[in-house]
Amino acid sequence: MDRFLRIDMTTRTATFAPVPDKYKGRAGRWLTSSIVHDEVPATCHPLGPNNKLVFSPGIVTGTSSPTSSRISVGGKSPLTGGIKEANAGTGWGGRLAHLGIRAIIVEGQAEGFWLLKIDKDGASFEAADSWTGEKLSEVYPSVFDQFGGAKAVDICSIGVSGENRMSSAGICFNDQKGRPSRYAGRGGLGAVMGSKGLKFIVVDDAGAESVVIADQDTFDSGRKKMAAALTEHAVTKPKGALNSYGTAVLVNIINEAGALPTNNFRTGRFEGAAKIAGEAIFEGNKERTGAELYNHACSPGCIIRCSNTWHRPDGSEHTSCLEYESAWALGANCGIDNLDQIAEMNNLCNEFGIDTIEIGGAIAVAMEGGLAEFGDGAKAIELVNEIGKATPLGRILGAGALATGKAFGVSRVPHVKGQNMPAYEPRAIKGIGMTYAISTMGADHTAGYTIAPEMLGVSGKLDPLDPNKTELARNFQYATAFIDTTGHCLFIAFAILDIASGFEGMIEECNGVLGTKWTADDVSRIGKEVIDLELDFNRKAGFTKADDRLPEFMTYEPLPPHNVVWDISDSEIDKVFG
Amino acid sequence: MDRFLRIDMTTRTATFAPVPDKYKGRAGRWLTSSIVHDEVPATCHPLGPNNKLVFSPGIVTGTSSPTSSRISVGGKSPLTGGIKEANAGTGWGGRLAHLGIRAIIVEGQAEGFWLLKIDKDGASFEAADSWTGEKLSEVYPSVFDQFGGAKAVDICSIGVSGENRMSSAGICFNDQKGRPSRYAGRGGLGAVMGSKGLKFIVVDDAGAESVVIADQDTFDSGRKKMAAALTEHAVTKPKGALNSYGTAVLVNIINEAGALPTNNFRTGRFEGAAKIAGEAIFEGNKERTGAELYNHACSPGCIIRCSNTWHRPDGSEHTSCLEYESAWALGANCGIDNLDQIAEMNNLCNEFGIDTIEIGGAIAVAMEGGLAEFGDGAKAIELVNEIGKATPLGRILGAGALATGKAFGVSRVPHVKGQNMPAYEPRAIKGIGMTYAISTMGADHTAGYTIAPEMLGVSGKLDPLDPNKTELARNFQYATAFIDTTGHCLFIAFAILDIASGFEGMIEECNGVLGTKWTADDVSRIGKEVIDLELDFNRKAGFTKADDRLPEFMTYEPLPPHNVVWDISDSEIDKVFG
Repeated sequence: MDRFLRIDMTTRTATFAPVPDKYKGRAGRWLTSSIVHDEVPATCHPLGPNNKLVFSPGIVTGTSSPTSSRISVGGKSPLTGGIKEANAGTGWGGRLAHLGIRAIIVEGQAEGFWLLKIDKDGASFEAADSWTGEKLSEVYPSVFDQFGGAKAVDICSIGVSGENRMSSAGICFNDQKGRPSRYAGRGGLGAVMGSKGLKFIVVDDAGAESVVIADQDTFDSGRKKMAAALTEHAVTKPKGALNSYGTAVLVNIINEAGALPTNNFRTGRFEGAAKIAGEAIFEGNKERTGAELYNHACSPGCIIRCSNTWHRPDGSEHTSCLEYESAWALGANCGIDNLDQIAEMNNLCNEFGIDTIEIGGAIAVAMEGGLAEFGDGAKAIELVNEIGKATPLGRILGAGALATGKAFGVSRVPHVKGQNMPAYEPRAIKGIGMTYAISTMGADHTAGYTIAPEMLGVSGKLDPLDPNKTELARNFQYATAFIDTTGHCLFIAFAILDIASGFEGMIEECNGVLGTKWTADDVSRIGKEVIDLELDFNRKAGFTKADDRLPEFMTYEPLPPHNVVWDISDSEIDKVFG
Repeated sequence: MDRFLRIDMTTRTATFAPVPDKYKGRAGRWLTSSIVHDEVPATCHPLGPNNKLVFSPGIVTGTSSPTSSRISVGGKSPLTGGIKEANAGTGWGGRLAHLGIRAIIVEGQAEGFWLLKIDKDGASFEAADSWTGEKLSEVYPSVFDQFGGAKAVDICSIGVSGENRMSSAGICFNDQKGRPSRYAGRGGLGAVMGSKGLKFIVVDDAGAESVVIADQDTFDSGRKKMAAALTEHAVTKPKGALNSYGTAVLVNIINEAGALPTNNFRTGRFEGAAKIAGEAIFEGNKERTGAELYNHACSPGCIIRCSNTWHRPDGSEHTSCLEYESAWALGANCGIDNLDQIAEMNNLCNEFGIDTIEIGGAIAVAMEGGLAEFGDGAKAIELVNEIGKATPLGRILGAGALATGKAFGVSRVPHVKGQNMPAYEPRAIKGIGMTYAISTMGADHTAGYTIAPEMLGVSGKLDPLDPNKTELARNFQYATAFIDTTGHCLFIAFAILDIASGFEGMIEECNGVLGTKWTADDVSRIGKEVIDLELDFNRKAGFTKADDRLPEFMTYEPLPPHNVVWDISDSEIDKVFG
């Protein structure tokens, strides 16, 4: 009973249709990238009528499989000009799966802004203009009120940045408390949604069936193996690294390694690192709330539970979640070591519906261009507020770091394919540099998280400065594309890399749902198929090997403290995908 | 005694060296594109230390050949990311030729801004910071004063837009009255000059030799044929179309043809066309000054004399020159039909040192994005003033039309390769659309001015709506690359296309200077060689056939009054250069 829901925003019509045979068994990133590849003209304007926005829950999303509530969103990116898949953890995708909706394909363009409501009876539209121009925390409660509350529905939306078609706008989903805080954040898919005139998609799965499972025994076996591996691994276990300190546990680790990009990638060590690290968040919360706060799950069924909440001095909630990438982007990369200031910026990004990584990068580039001193948190907060007001300056920042560099004549922009680099210095961690260079997504750590072996010793410890990372980069990208297809969070990677039964469990879960007989070979086969589709789209969009390059300044500017440049040859980079 | 002058801005050293054998006989665009191709890493950042800025006078520049005072400027463009050659008419290039300087190659990057003085004794530097931040009309007189006046020297410079590294900044040269008004305008080479910390290049040719002529008789024969053809042709003769009405004589012609892009390329007819046409400029000047003003020569030795001056109601000078492209870009394309307002914008662009075509395009896109109503000249003037103040809004506009579209989420940006289209609608004039699509420079009418046959009946009249323009586009680009190599103004094209002896004359002039035996075959051979070098650079910079495309909206949005879309297939476009 799996089906596609095709939405024509021009005419505001919703059409359900069976999943075409060629797409059967595909889900998550595999399906979004397939549809974008097959249906979107690669040279279309990302904000024009011919781009499409595709949503698909993963293969096991909506089942009882642990940590599998990811929703994939795909389209042509206004930030990179290439294909984009971004995913988020939220109950929204599971509800879609319960309704048997394998993909939503949004086409055309509407005048004004609209709310799309989906439930077991179908899909309907209502005008949403009255909800535009506001902070997301101000509109989510009233939308929840109208549709029965956060137990009954989950909400997908854009903020003012998406309404204004800013190239860094993300697509927002609520967490389990209904907070508009979980993002398919990167690559500007929120601008695509804005260009279509779509403000909200509310999903109500009342009365829906469970996800159909073809082979319950195999599924159950897999689910148990996965749960056991996640519960056992030091990184993902209860009160383990992620549950205690959140992803920001990485701040001290990466800083110690000399790879924490600081002041727009001028150095790999940040003096204030300890003040913004996961440990500092834990201790700060303890001091302010009087309790040792372990983290919560962003989405139903997650047993890693890595999402934190930062509290104000009076103990009230300030922002959730403050991820490593955000604490770094809005902190170290801007030279800011004050968690309250960083939390405020993080909160504002969530209010405006925009990617924290890209905005931190844009502010750092603006600082490089003379708009503020590195470390000036008060000024940085002002800059983020410009985005919410959609002033010219806010629009520059909202268009991303590369656009900010263009506006202010800054040549030191740490990007690949127009997407700002995340929180790992490629000069000091060569494998992640390879990932940035070759990823179909632009600079993206989640495309192949080689940090696991290079920094954390997962699946064996690799020397981050060793340039021989070609195989690693390729294999991680294929494996990641498969994980993004299952609906699992990327953070299962630690457990499945180190614990063989966890890896088996992932495959068994998929075989259980689909009735397939996949083996480990199919993981890389499917991963490669996904990447090949994306590479083909990008090639047709005009990308060449010349786009698979780190920014020039990294090849001649040595990075302290190791004083290393980016020294992997172009020909070696080009070997990754041949 | 021809030599290269290599300038290292990092160390502020100037080194003269003989012209390498491989470059002997090359000049103008042939030489700038050769050096950029051979010396500039194609993937370097245009505003980083590894880009170079190259100046070269044409083969016959500085001789008595008529209408040949063009200076070519080359580098990697911050606007397009590809190779760029832009040229201007000015006495500056002739003085370089007199000094035997075949090319200046500017490398490295300085702190602060500097003035480079070149004369027969060598080259020297002095600090120029005190001259920055000002309107060009305010600094040129004092620079002239310091170096002996406009009879003694010519000045090359950037304005505040170049100082601020805006991607639409041009490189300014003075006309014969010393006005900072002649531009190598397109593609942002002024930003490259700014990134190098170079504010002025003052050239004094006192005591220099004449240009060496290998075969005086052949040269004289060619020069006479060229002069006769220019003096005879209806477009270029004294008191002919260009001398009377300037390039803006085209406004009514192109409007009549339904090909005058209006309101950001929404229609091909502008209701106010007659009010901004060359005829209106002529009549307005007559009314305000009491005289029939025929146009003047922008540079020494030009017998076409197409440069106009616009006067205020009190008869005082307002701006010079108000070209067709500028009157269109700042006028029709923004829906503005008031010549005084257009002249003020033109004047401000000259003051700030920025390309009128790109800025008109950026303002039109900003209007499309809701910043002003089409036709609101007062607001448009305010917008241009933002550029001079380098406000965030000014920086958006100064970064060009595509960047403006990115900032304001506008998908209707009429550009190719990031450069805004000039004043001819490609949907209504197919050959110029082919030129825009395939030019190595981005959308550029001067890359292959097929308007001559398609609109003006030069070399026979072609139907503008006929899509069979593949051969035409190719041949015009080759021939143009040769003209840009000679140092002649592109406007000799009318005469040499229609008058065979004029074409012979061009070749004889070159043979006379160089002692070569070129024939008509060499014109296309050399033109092809230039284009091939540029194509190779762009390929290495990452360009593909996907970049040789007109913007998507032109393929589905019919243009009034002919209601035509861009309908030449990709495969046909790709045949032009194979």
